[in-house]
Amino acid sequence: MMVLVTYDVNTEKEAGKKRLRKVAKLCKDYGQRVQNSVFECLVDPVQFAKLRKRLEEIIDAENDSLRYYFLGDNWKSRVEHVGAKGTYDPEGVLMV
Amino acid sequence: MMVLVTYDVNTEKEAGKKRLRKVAKLCKDYGQRVQNSVFECLVDPVQFAKLRKRLEEIIDAENDSLRYYFLGDNWKSRVEHVGAKGTYDPEGVLMV
Repeated sequence: MMVLVTYDVNTEKEAGKKRLRKVAKLCKDYGQRVQNSVFECLVDPVQFAKLRKRLEEIIDAENDSLRYYFLGDNWKSRVEHVGAKGTYDPEGVLMV
Repeated sequence: MMVLVTYDVNTEKEAGKKRLRKVAKLCKDYGQRVQNSVFECLVDPVQFAKLRKRLEEIIDAENDSLRYYFLGDNWKSRVEHVGAKGTYDPEGVLMV
């Protein structure tokens, strides 16, 4: 199933920057980064359960926001892209 | 129809910051900001056509990325949220 994962991590403090890196790193293991804080994850239910469990362990629920969009089987017909394909990476070398 | 609009605007240059503010301001007119660069827009086809036209005029297609996700009628069942509800606003007072 295709799950879109979007997040806002509050990076005002150093700990937030660390969370952001962890969230991005984890999402990379499960999906395709399509924008800076947007990942498209083609996962089975077991994989998704793992991803979500781990994400929800990493984030600070009082400061960070996480959204899942379940795009279903016809997900390709639901997506449209305009503009640059590669996203610029404000996290620089830390995103390796 | 519910259209999710997500964007990455390259803000390395001053002009990019201006584009980012314009994109966010426009999206606010059509939808609900759910994360910093993610808007849920409940629009009819005419409204969506206007929104998309305007967005695509604002962005710099070589540097910025824009994605539309058409969530369909059952959009409520497709969305799940975890964590903080309000997004922090890195654009500060400019987002009024």
